[in-house]
Amino acid sequence: MEPSSGSRDAGPAVPPVAAVLPAGGSGERLGGATPKQFCAVQGRPLVSYTVRAMERIGWISDIIVVVSPENVETMKSIIEKYGHKRVTVVKGGITRHRSIFNGLKVFAENEFSDHLLQKPEVVIIHDAVRPFVEEDILSKVVMAAKEHGAAGAIRPLVSTVIASAADGCLDHSLERARYRASEMPQAFLFDIIYEAYQQCTDYDLDYGTECLHLALKYCKTNAKLIEGTADLWKVTYKRDLYAAESIIKDNLSQQVCVITDVKEVVAQVGSLLHESLQSQIKVEAMSASLSKNDSHLQNILSGHCYNFVCVNDKKCAIQETQQLVDVLEKSNIPLLYPVVLILVHLDVSENISVSIGMEELTRIKKFARELKKKNILVYGLLIQYK
Amino acid sequence: MEPSSGSRDAGPAVPPVAAVLPAGGSGERLGGATPKQFCAVQGRPLVSYTVRAMERIGWISDIIVVVSPENVETMKSIIEKYGHKRVTVVKGGITRHRSIFNGLKVFAENEFSDHLLQKPEVVIIHDAVRPFVEEDILSKVVMAAKEHGAAGAIRPLVSTVIASAADGCLDHSLERARYRASEMPQAFLFDIIYEAYQQCTDYDLDYGTECLHLALKYCKTNAKLIEGTADLWKVTYKRDLYAAESIIKDNLSQQVCVITDVKEVVAQVGSLLHESLQSQIKVEAMSASLSKNDSHLQNILSGHCYNFVCVNDKKCAIQETQQLVDVLEKSNIPLLYPVVLILVHLDVSENISVSIGMEELTRIKKFARELKKKNILVYGLLIQYK
Repeated sequence: MEPSSGSRDAGPAVPPVAAVLPAGGSGERLGGATPKQFCAVQGRPLVSYTVRAMERIGWISDIIVVVSPENVETMKSIIEKYGHKRVTVVKGGITRHRSIFNGLKVFAENEFSDHLLQKPEVVIIHDAVRPFVEEDILSKVVMAAKEHGAAGAIRPLVSTVIASAADGCLDHSLERARYRASEMPQAFLFDIIYEAYQQCTDYDLDYGTECLHLALKYCKTNAKLIEGTADLWKVTYKRDLYAAESIIKDNLSQQVCVITDVKEVVAQVGSLLHESLQSQIKVEAMSASLSKNDSHLQNILSGHCYNFVCVNDKKCAIQETQQLVDVLEKSNIPLLYPVVLILVHLDVSENISVSIGMEELTRIKKFARELKKKNILVYGLLIQYK
Repeated sequence: MEPSSGSRDAGPAVPPVAAVLPAGGSGERLGGATPKQFCAVQGRPLVSYTVRAMERIGWISDIIVVVSPENVETMKSIIEKYGHKRVTVVKGGITRHRSIFNGLKVFAENEFSDHLLQKPEVVIIHDAVRPFVEEDILSKVVMAAKEHGAAGAIRPLVSTVIASAADGCLDHSLERARYRASEMPQAFLFDIIYEAYQQCTDYDLDYGTECLHLALKYCKTNAKLIEGTADLWKVTYKRDLYAAESIIKDNLSQQVCVITDVKEVVAQVGSLLHESLQSQIKVEAMSASLSKNDSHLQNILSGHCYNFVCVNDKKCAIQETQQLVDVLEKSNIPLLYPVVLILVHLDVSENISVSIGMEELTRIKKFARELKKKNILVYGLLIQYK
């Protein structure tokens, strides 16, 4: 999966991969005043989902978000609020190409950031309004760019493409099977795309839209085309925001975070759960313990996980769970949709009486009733494990 | 707005307009077993919304829905359940073009229906999976088809279109501004499109997708291209179903049905309300009276109206409103989203005491409390009108 042999943690032998996200659009097609990249989806701006998709990937070293000058402060506050890392905000130009060019300049010219960022071997270009990009396609375009100099995701055409004559009548239609829609992400050897932008005309910068075209025209680089999945679509119209919201909601219910205690037997059950769950559902992460309010857990929460399984063998797990609830409440998760907490209480002792189990159950019931008001659903589960 | 000089009611001097809706798709791009045209959106199959959009328009005489042979019974039961009128179900072929051709044959050949339908001058072709088609664009394509022989709705391209070379690399990209996406609806003089289908090759029928192309290739007819609105998009992927659902929900809250009594003063207030509301919201219809359980009201309900304003001057309007509630419950409206009933009680007498007004208010409150359990929200409004 990892396109670079030198990973971020190990210290890159190969210069790392960077990503430039043009986010300068005005959102006029959306029919609203807020540009679509800043529209809230489940209480969080769309651009934040896209940044998150990028920052999850360890081998992307720098994420450059290019916004129009009036949105620089908005973007900076989004980065702060959602705790995004490795992000640099850059002022865009008046067109898409001019914005991307500005984004690339932070690796080559001093004027655009406080310090020159390390020039990457490969740069990914991806729209801020395509939040559902997966590591798989990013990895594919980066590897293809290393080999071919440029690469981009494509999709089959949904509609036939036609050319009109001057009188507004049909001139000809294109055979649908021979053409593809050019989508994002795209990736380029940095030197190629930067050279293309330096060489291209003002007409290209003002009226062009296609980076692959610039690489072909100015650097004779025929981009490798990679078939992408349907997720790569671009949020363009209001209906796309509706769709994005529904997809995000769907994903919420299909992710689970398994939290286990440090003790060996508990961790073992956690691993078994992890293994068996991950064939059914996306298992986000495993944390060592709830009692340590660690940053790992914070990261999971900022990833909007809505389902948790907490495994422990303590007599009373409620206090510990209360800490998770506190973290949930302090985090920026909008509790519009229920958070599901499943408390797995492991009974590893042989001499626990049934009445103690019942007491625990009553406590969990009461606890669950309280939390339900906050839209957090708690379920208790007692497992005899010998 | 009306493209034909002879309206349906007056007895057509010009042969009427018909519509053919290909609905034979397998929905493979949706990733689900149910073809998308039969997927439920707010409890109702998508195709039913599209049929409704067509049948609302009085100048469309016949609506031909072409479905794959295994879905004929499903389609017939949808027509029965939702009370669709003027619809003929036809068995489709194995491709889109073969299905449309079958749909056209019901106007020209005896084998495809029990009785030959009257051949229209103009035929509309529209996808069953594009439910948000408005009369305005239908009227425009029909009028353009009368003048040019063929016409179709177009939209700007969302993505750049590219051609790939044999090695999977970019060959060239098209200048986005010079091309358009061909959308639906399209309209044709019947004789032109039928001739085109009769002349075209098996290759066209099996691999082609574009009706405008057939009219050009076989009848030398350059279709007039009409810029459509963003609503014309085609439900293709699962995300599109999400979007369709949200749009339909949005529309629900933006429609109101004003129901007034037959008495003059009540009708007068109803008209004033109708006039002032329609600048804010879509006013569906006005019915004469609730006490007559008339078919007009049934039609409004089948149109999924979720807001009602009932104007009356009776002492007790609750019994009458109960009838509306009964009709609502008997209808196929899924009460997932609240139905809002505003009871406007007109006080036209001068000698009504305040206490009688209060009694009425208490009754409405109790009535409202009961109905709230059924997700019907009732509000009372007393207007002094002298």
